[in-house]
Amino acid sequence: MGYPKVVIVGGGFGGLRAAQGLKKADVLITLIDKTNHHLFQPLLYQVASAALSPGNIAVPIREVLKKQPNVEVLMADVEAVDLKNQCVITGNEESFPYDYLILAPGSHHSYFGHPEWEALAPGLKTLADAVAIREKLILLSFERAERCDQQQQVRRYMRFVIIGGGPTGVEMAGSIAEIASTTLVRNFRKIRPEQTEIFLVEGASHVLPSYPEKLSLRAEKDLEKMGVRVLTNNLVTQVTPEGVQLKDRFIESSNIIWAAGNQASPLLQTLGTPLDKSGRAFVELDMSLPGYPQVFVIGDAAHAVNAKGELLPGLAPVAIQQGRYVADVIARRLPPLDRKPFRYFDKGNMATIGKAKAVAYIGKWTFSGYLAWLAWGLIHIAYLINFSNRLLVMTQWFFWYLTGQRRVRLIIQSFEDTE
Amino acid sequence: MGYPKVVIVGGGFGGLRAAQGLKKADVLITLIDKTNHHLFQPLLYQVASAALSPGNIAVPIREVLKKQPNVEVLMADVEAVDLKNQCVITGNEESFPYDYLILAPGSHHSYFGHPEWEALAPGLKTLADAVAIREKLILLSFERAERCDQQQQVRRYMRFVIIGGGPTGVEMAGSIAEIASTTLVRNFRKIRPEQTEIFLVEGASHVLPSYPEKLSLRAEKDLEKMGVRVLTNNLVTQVTPEGVQLKDRFIESSNIIWAAGNQASPLLQTLGTPLDKSGRAFVELDMSLPGYPQVFVIGDAAHAVNAKGELLPGLAPVAIQQGRYVADVIARRLPPLDRKPFRYFDKGNMATIGKAKAVAYIGKWTFSGYLAWLAWGLIHIAYLINFSNRLLVMTQWFFWYLTGQRRVRLIIQSFEDTE
Repeated sequence: MGYPKVVIVGGGFGGLRAAQGLKKADVLITLIDKTNHHLFQPLLYQVASAALSPGNIAVPIREVLKKQPNVEVLMADVEAVDLKNQCVITGNEESFPYDYLILAPGSHHSYFGHPEWEALAPGLKTLADAVAIREKLILLSFERAERCDQQQQVRRYMRFVIIGGGPTGVEMAGSIAEIASTTLVRNFRKIRPEQTEIFLVEGASHVLPSYPEKLSLRAEKDLEKMGVRVLTNNLVTQVTPEGVQLKDRFIESSNIIWAAGNQASPLLQTLGTPLDKSGRAFVELDMSLPGYPQVFVIGDAAHAVNAKGELLPGLAPVAIQQGRYVADVIARRLPPLDRKPFRYFDKGNMATIGKAKAVAYIGKWTFSGYLAWLAWGLIHIAYLINFSNRLLVMTQWFFWYLTGQRRVRLIIQSFEDTE
Repeated sequence: MGYPKVVIVGGGFGGLRAAQGLKKADVLITLIDKTNHHLFQPLLYQVASAALSPGNIAVPIREVLKKQPNVEVLMADVEAVDLKNQCVITGNEESFPYDYLILAPGSHHSYFGHPEWEALAPGLKTLADAVAIREKLILLSFERAERCDQQQQVRRYMRFVIIGGGPTGVEMAGSIAEIASTTLVRNFRKIRPEQTEIFLVEGASHVLPSYPEKLSLRAEKDLEKMGVRVLTNNLVTQVTPEGVQLKDRFIESSNIIWAAGNQASPLLQTLGTPLDKSGRAFVELDMSLPGYPQVFVIGDAAHAVNAKGELLPGLAPVAIQQGRYVADVIARRLPPLDRKPFRYFDKGNMATIGKAKAVAYIGKWTFSGYLAWLAWGLIHIAYLINFSNRLLVMTQWFFWYLTGQRRVRLIIQSFEDTE
């Protein structure tokens, strides 16, 4: 009856690498994603902060896989997995049967049980999010401030609150500080962009809580130097159209960006297998669902542990390595007992704060400043898919480095002008 | 009482050049545009056809003018001009008084008295239009075709109708033909993009009706070779969600692009002065409104004639030269009788059809093919504002030339999946 059918849900780092890992395998792959593109998420904040165009960090999934005839790519919303009948079901009730299933649907931001905050404090997970933050929150706010006569309202427009001090929050805070201090200089006649206020709110005692404390402190110092006010040990208790309530103060602001917590894709709730409190599916050491050795969950959607029982972090390298691992298990048709447990090889972590400012660590080795920033840039360029994207991103970074300019300062959508 | 106030409405080619032409003049300029960017409209079809990113052909107006302290830039909708009280009024009821007024609000597509067709057959005037055509009409149509089982429906998804055979229509038709024949090759497993059907509908007896007939014929031949079916002498009598009714046939299609006729901005209707049937304001030989020597209308919004009484075409070079001319009149405070009539210096016209295919003429001299195409590319690069944009566009064109790839094939917005 022909080759086994492999269905992959999600074309992010994990799903795409799984498909590529099956290039030479005798299988028929269907990769389903709700967008048409693979997104290089580590640089998404640069689209949100007007430094890069969406086209620079995303490529059509079918373009990446066009030379792999055993893959069919579909743009569709997968709404449910039917483990009993071995199929996935898409939005328009189509059903796709599988022999092997790889679930890599990713995660959203978690609003700590307050989904109504999402409209007031958008997160940063998709290209649409990034463009909305760029246009609506950042650029339009300065335009409105310039047109506004009321001093208090001007201050609200020019005050940014970023909730969550992980890498995304740190990178967004640093970028907005650079926009205000460098990019927009001399652009306005009434307001002074240098008077922008930026707050970075983190619940733990330091930003970058998963990093060595030394680097967290360095990041905080760099951010403060750039004019960002870092509020650690601070939880958000309320978000309103007027601003953010913290435990001991209310910050009036019309620009709130959410970069806290993760919640795995709701698709996993249709599995009926145990999920952790972030909605991730518990998986075995071979990334398979307990009781379903032909169903794998990888990336941000998986609650996977290493041999020591430590939870693997939600990072691109983890997803990539899991994708390759699962592809290998499937290609070799390994029965459960013959599968060696997945092992994550940690190549290090890095976060950038601003021009010539970054922090990084590999194992116990930490470094920061110009060197870390250069390494960050080179590694991200190297991992970008597509030679022309590498060249375009390098060109734009070069101009940004020389001039502080962020080229993509466009407001494309028209927004209701209700002040 | 200080310097005279100049209000400029519109930051397109005409408005921007007028502001720049007043750089050294002792005036206070307020430039108001409803977007935040100056758009290089001649390359807009390349954004619609996924070859360039919006950021490559647009720059923030305030960035362009930041070193000109006598200009203030505002993002606002101008809703009315009050000639009697010498002020313009914006959407939120703000009033801007002027001593001199330059109106350069541009034009929209004209739907020949059927505004309801706009939703079914979008035009191509703004970045938002271009992104919508790229995502919704072109890319999503192929995605839907790949997912669809009904042969007739697949054909509707893969059939494109472009209405209007001027430069924009010709360029869009050629681009879609290239996407189908080259860019998407091997991207799909069920449909064959080469089977895409493209119709270009023109009311006159030839495409590019304002061009020498020799070039129109050449363009038609090139288009037919690329697989475009050119339907001349053909008017659209009805547009429905199912397709387009021409005089003698109905073309079923879900992808209709409107590139016909122009209608000047509705702002001009608030003037109370005579307009032509395209809504353009009749102006004197010095571009001023009859009876209002301190109010000028330029670009697509003006019905301006040369000394022979011939109407000036709605082209970027006309608007640019008018902007410079009006700036000079204002800078020198010329009374009406001292103003020499505006003279348009025609540097030629060109339209591109596809890779290595273009037509051009300067006066009576016509040329076409590779040479015209090279000239087209060089001239457009040279006229782009901003050195980094030139470099980025060149890089992308170089890759496109080598590989036929169009990099920006992204569907960023999510659309309701109603088939």
